[in-house]
Amino acid sequence: MSRIYNFAAGPAVLPLEVLQEAQKNLVDYKGCGMSVMEMSHRGKDYDAIHQEAIATFKELCGLNDDWAVCFIQGGASLQFAMIPLNFLGKDQVADYVKSGTWGGKAVKEAQKIGTVNIAADCQKDIPTRQPDADEFKWTPGAVYSHICTNETISGAEIKEIPETGSPLIGDMSSDILSCPRDYTKFTMFYAGAQKNLGPSGMAVVAIRKEFAEKGNASLPTMLQYRTFVDENSLYNTPPTWGIYIFGETMKWVKKMGKENLFKLNAEKAKKIYDVIDSTEFYRGTAKKEFRSNMNVTWRLPTEELEAQFVAEAKKLGMGSLKGHRSVGGIRASIYNAFPMEGVDALVAFMKDFEKKNG
Amino acid sequence: MSRIYNFAAGPAVLPLEVLQEAQKNLVDYKGCGMSVMEMSHRGKDYDAIHQEAIATFKELCGLNDDWAVCFIQGGASLQFAMIPLNFLGKDQVADYVKSGTWGGKAVKEAQKIGTVNIAADCQKDIPTRQPDADEFKWTPGAVYSHICTNETISGAEIKEIPETGSPLIGDMSSDILSCPRDYTKFTMFYAGAQKNLGPSGMAVVAIRKEFAEKGNASLPTMLQYRTFVDENSLYNTPPTWGIYIFGETMKWVKKMGKENLFKLNAEKAKKIYDVIDSTEFYRGTAKKEFRSNMNVTWRLPTEELEAQFVAEAKKLGMGSLKGHRSVGGIRASIYNAFPMEGVDALVAFMKDFEKKNG
Repeated sequence: MSRIYNFAAGPAVLPLEVLQEAQKNLVDYKGCGMSVMEMSHRGKDYDAIHQEAIATFKELCGLNDDWAVCFIQGGASLQFAMIPLNFLGKDQVADYVKSGTWGGKAVKEAQKIGTVNIAADCQKDIPTRQPDADEFKWTPGAVYSHICTNETISGAEIKEIPETGSPLIGDMSSDILSCPRDYTKFTMFYAGAQKNLGPSGMAVVAIRKEFAEKGNASLPTMLQYRTFVDENSLYNTPPTWGIYIFGETMKWVKKMGKENLFKLNAEKAKKIYDVIDSTEFYRGTAKKEFRSNMNVTWRLPTEELEAQFVAEAKKLGMGSLKGHRSVGGIRASIYNAFPMEGVDALVAFMKDFEKKNG
Repeated sequence: MSRIYNFAAGPAVLPLEVLQEAQKNLVDYKGCGMSVMEMSHRGKDYDAIHQEAIATFKELCGLNDDWAVCFIQGGASLQFAMIPLNFLGKDQVADYVKSGTWGGKAVKEAQKIGTVNIAADCQKDIPTRQPDADEFKWTPGAVYSHICTNETISGAEIKEIPETGSPLIGDMSSDILSCPRDYTKFTMFYAGAQKNLGPSGMAVVAIRKEFAEKGNASLPTMLQYRTFVDENSLYNTPPTWGIYIFGETMKWVKKMGKENLFKLNAEKAKKIYDVIDSTEFYRGTAKKEFRSNMNVTWRLPTEELEAQFVAEAKKLGMGSLKGHRSVGGIRASIYNAFPMEGVDALVAFMKDFEKKNG
């Protein structure tokens, strides 16, 4: 077996230990005679997996019993619609930050449903960035405010969670549990699972129960947060395999020590940014003060060199370094499970590539 | 390793061959250096899996290029809402058959959104059944008609697909690809994957492209069928692992020969029904002409005996025989992947149990 260094932005690399454990148990989970994929979601074998996954995540995020953690299929993209459907009523306003592609998509879905105030807009700025603290214009009395803490495509991250004056909702798809955050500043936060949490197929949604109760009760059952809160994500069949791998990944984070992982994440990113800053050959895409530790983005002098860079890296076992098709350039996604050795290999390659082509 | 005989209604038993193949490839899929769970959904490794899964399913169902096959997260329960949201407008009527719990849930969600005509109602009938052919009252000019071909909880199946006079939509969650059907009689059919198709976490939706185009275009992007049709279920990150196992399961069906599987399914069910019919001790729950070949349901003389039956079977390696919590009794779900030996073991146990307790 030879594993590549997988720089994909999501679905993305998972902890090798988690994969090996899942492999061992795939046909017969811990002697119960069936795969996790085959278990009734109402049975006790699955129930233990479900409860432990929630408990470990709550512990890692420092959430008390005022919070519910829900598994909602449809990824962050469905959340972009569910949030305004539930909480943005007629004659109400919600604040949104257009920080990039994902913040912009959230705005677009909300505008279909109600009145949106753009609290700050830096979607079109190059180099990409998040808004400065003094740039936000929050609406007094807004029903909620929405931010995207890390823009996966551009590689720009909010370093300081803003005080918005209304219930704060965070799309943390690509930086959840990657750096120190006070999650209790939020009223709700969510993440498509396929970056730092597990496989694709669901959003993990943490929501204050009191807030969920305020949602529009005339919506379809499956679009109401209260359905997931009241039924502990078991109103209908949940994505059991994804929840299992999520739970195993959360146990791995706990075992590694989250503070230790946060430190490693900062070190991994710094190594790549240091190469970028040491030369004119590479140009970082994000403004320095907003540089993401999860998605490192940069350009080369020409698109031809970028294509060559990606192709040569691939031959050396470094996959998915091509930037998102909407922006081009290079992107190295280095989530919690991405190993330091992969970063070292990339850094060595970057130096070598510049020497040969600079 | 000792596998149990898993009679669960869904998530349910998967083909052992499929699980073993998935296990072999879990950490490194066919030498590409990563797990299917870690692959970018925009990369060529995953793309091959995605395309083959769709093609195999279309071939098995006999669908031409007028049809799209979509992977939509949220299971059949979200479909109950998406269908009327897309197709049931103001001043329009849709026909629904209340054939049991699931047909009833579909009605409930549709009634939140528009005007529903109940074309037939046998939800409360015991023994459970589907409507007789002369019982349906279809609405001229209905925008669509909705049936549930197999009621998983009660074990009642429609044997003859009715002519409804409007575009027919079928919830086939628990009997898709289990018996001969002319799928082209439908305009759309769908199934929660976790019974005959793969793991939980999505509905597989087959829809005529022309029909999808008629959907309400002002809905949130993720709730429009056209999003999934136009983007081949790649508008956002799809549930890649579930699609992979679905594709492997469809290849297994093809390899086994679907006609052969259909015949085996009928034989498996008949063996159990024959024991039920040979005695007064067991009483079948469904009317004979509507008996499901996928979910065989019956009662014992007392609830105490039912509990004892389930407990003793479990000790013998036969799991999840307890009927759905809403109706009680016994249920043996015997989907495509359920082996004949498991049926033989159950039949032997039923005879023995009656001898000791009858």
